[in-house]
Amino acid sequence: MTPPPSPGPAGLIPHGPADLVVTGCTALTHDPQGEIVFVDDATIVVRDGVIASVTAGGPQAPPGARHVDGRGTVALPGLVNCHTHTPMVALRGLAEDLPAHAWFNDWIWPVESNLTERVVGLGARLACAEMIRAGVTTFADHYFAMDEVAAATEESGLRAVLGQAYFSTQGPEGRAASLDFALRQRGAADGRITTCLAPHAPYTVDEADLAATAELAGEHGLLVHIHAAENHEQTANSLARHGRTPIEILERAGLLDTDVLLAHVTGLDTARDLPVLRRAAERSGGRVAVASAPRGYLKFGWDTTPVRALREAGVPVGLATDGAASNNTLDVWESMTLTALVQKSVERDPTWLTARQALDHATLQSARAVGLGDEIGSLAAGRRADIVLVDLTGPHTQPVHDLAATLVHSARSGDVRTTIVAGRVLMRDRELLTLDVPDIVGELSGLLPELVDRSHGKRIQEYEG
Amino acid sequence: MTPPPSPGPAGLIPHGPADLVVTGCTALTHDPQGEIVFVDDATIVVRDGVIASVTAGGPQAPPGARHVDGRGTVALPGLVNCHTHTPMVALRGLAEDLPAHAWFNDWIWPVESNLTERVVGLGARLACAEMIRAGVTTFADHYFAMDEVAAATEESGLRAVLGQAYFSTQGPEGRAASLDFALRQRGAADGRITTCLAPHAPYTVDEADLAATAELAGEHGLLVHIHAAENHEQTANSLARHGRTPIEILERAGLLDTDVLLAHVTGLDTARDLPVLRRAAERSGGRVAVASAPRGYLKFGWDTTPVRALREAGVPVGLATDGAASNNTLDVWESMTLTALVQKSVERDPTWLTARQALDHATLQSARAVGLGDEIGSLAAGRRADIVLVDLTGPHTQPVHDLAATLVHSARSGDVRTTIVAGRVLMRDRELLTLDVPDIVGELSGLLPELVDRSHGKRIQEYEG
Repeated sequence: MTPPPSPGPAGLIPHGPADLVVTGCTALTHDPQGEIVFVDDATIVVRDGVIASVTAGGPQAPPGARHVDGRGTVALPGLVNCHTHTPMVALRGLAEDLPAHAWFNDWIWPVESNLTERVVGLGARLACAEMIRAGVTTFADHYFAMDEVAAATEESGLRAVLGQAYFSTQGPEGRAASLDFALRQRGAADGRITTCLAPHAPYTVDEADLAATAELAGEHGLLVHIHAAENHEQTANSLARHGRTPIEILERAGLLDTDVLLAHVTGLDTARDLPVLRRAAERSGGRVAVASAPRGYLKFGWDTTPVRALREAGVPVGLATDGAASNNTLDVWESMTLTALVQKSVERDPTWLTARQALDHATLQSARAVGLGDEIGSLAAGRRADIVLVDLTGPHTQPVHDLAATLVHSARSGDVRTTIVAGRVLMRDRELLTLDVPDIVGELSGLLPELVDRSHGKRIQEYEG
Repeated sequence: MTPPPSPGPAGLIPHGPADLVVTGCTALTHDPQGEIVFVDDATIVVRDGVIASVTAGGPQAPPGARHVDGRGTVALPGLVNCHTHTPMVALRGLAEDLPAHAWFNDWIWPVESNLTERVVGLGARLACAEMIRAGVTTFADHYFAMDEVAAATEESGLRAVLGQAYFSTQGPEGRAASLDFALRQRGAADGRITTCLAPHAPYTVDEADLAATAELAGEHGLLVHIHAAENHEQTANSLARHGRTPIEILERAGLLDTDVLLAHVTGLDTARDLPVLRRAAERSGGRVAVASAPRGYLKFGWDTTPVRALREAGVPVGLATDGAASNNTLDVWESMTLTALVQKSVERDPTWLTARQALDHATLQSARAVGLGDEIGSLAAGRRADIVLVDLTGPHTQPVHDLAATLVHSARSGDVRTTIVAGRVLMRDRELLTLDVPDIVGELSGLLPELVDRSHGKRIQEYEG
């Protein structure tokens, strides 16, 4: 069901001298049907931030080009975190072993009353450092004070799809601010930032607001990124209150006719919602997508995203981590591994969601989910040079009988040795080159006592799911 | 339900000059009730392979002692892999995305017809390297050609509980060889090796053989390590064939009156088996234990070990990885994380199996499961100096609001910086000091084509579960 990767817009492949050449790696590429093909002893040539060629054997590093020795590594398209709230790393581990109601109402939403732009900026920088070290090259963020996140994106060198979150309790100003952010920051950071509209969820944004959002998205050609059917309790509550599931509410508001990224969808009402999503996927050519962050669903005791049903309905499912306040990590590699394991478990089918299928979700499907299906997600001429090199020489990844299985079931995010975005090396041999973690952590630590103070008794919303 | 850690046999705490001193770490210790207490700025003094003291602040490193600077790290009792088949790392990734029947009958048992002592020895060495790098200091191994594993244990510096596996198809010689190994290797490697009897499973070892094993275990004071009720299909088949569950078969054979370590137990028949295990635990003082390796259960689409019920029945549950041919890793840290996540999920209770409970399984309960409850599993005076230092300075483990949550849900095995067994440093700053991975992998790779050849059509057993 995955369409073949396109080489990108005609004429995008740049000519002239290479900026960067990776040699001697095994490259994960895709054939025209989108199937994964590993190319041994590959050379990847990068010009102007774009992949110029991926060839077996291939040229030696030309003089003048930066050379990365890829021997002993596998080159993958950089991972995509399709749904996160980066600044929430500041709350990592603050509210543990709790059900969703207590997590939101007693901890997260009270503490978020204390957010400052500086905390958001520092949290986003710490998150970017974590993601670069974990081989993530693009993240889709959904939070507040997003100009701070845009600045962190710029500074970190990462690629991002950013949306300013809003609730209907903010009045029309919430939506207007989200649109203002999206139009103002679109194309920032040398084009590494794309933007979206980010209504919070069907249970915090009313139907009129959702409908207005759908119109704005169409008018401005913007993606909409929204939480939807996060769990079955939400779906049951939605049916009780409105007579419609969260997915049906989105459909009625016109949001399923736009490019839309739905976070979680573990509460899918298969009988009612699946035909709706299938029709939307057919109508839009697969522009309705889902982001799945399986770790948090286990932790909250929820069902997981019904990946098999969504795949069969033609809906791309990208991998995500959600925020670190619930998920504890921004480790998309772990999301890939858990997707494979949990899907086998819930379907009671060890032959399903193979290692290659997990890699498909981590590459082409994740790229499509965040609206960058022609730009990233594959190591192919014309695609952005977002590349990670994974070291497979460790004892835990040897021997290699099946490279896909080694990547999904034995390797770890900590095996990522080098992270490259738009042809720029952001981590070399595990050393971060754009961000200073001790500085960030030092300043953030000083702000934490004020951040976590809940004595004011306020909260930014009330969670009723 | 966990009894307080004992300081070990009276008089074990050695006097005289320290061999090794770790300073400046945060130490995970246990109070007399077995609850976890983190001690900041701790100093750990080691003499003669045993912990002499763990104190806050504490002395500077005395002259002559080896000094490990623990600043920025947490010191934990070394992890225990309570059930594995180390040489099977040679088959890592060979048989993927398969149900258990095909995995055994089409791949593993045919390939195991080709095992040689050299492959076993190399596999065990590679596995030891993987475990040292993952912070595992003790492993319970259940396999063939175990003298090779003993030699690898000796060379690696790890602690191990080793058993030579047997099937009834081998005749009485299988059991006799297991006993011979257990008596001969007991106390080897300067006491780091303890041994056990290792009948394969109730479906491959008949009742007479199991009863004889129970007698030998009692006579020689040996632990018995056996697969039991690996999944519900096995339990159903056992009931159909014998009118008894696998647990009832073990009880009838007298094995639940011995020190016994049951691997997996995901197929527990709660109504029939739980009272049996509760009685056995009461009778034996908790010497009936279970090893849980949750990754593989997800991968095979099985239920998981019913940890909550077993805890309530007084049965210790230790953490394990099984062999890498099914589990793909020997990463006990991942087993700890998955135990927390999967237990919340299956119990539909986010408040259960807290991070501290996961750490309890990883420390005291795992030590008890492998019969070393007084020797390892806690950083306390008189216990063996099996210590790992975990680096928490990485961006993915900052900030720290709740250290237990950071360890269980954010940290990774790759964050283990230093691994110490019996006071000897086996890995320093991620560098292995006792094993040469490229050498091992190089030689093993040359033997793989012959190992994986299935053209002979043989298999060592037939899996009917």
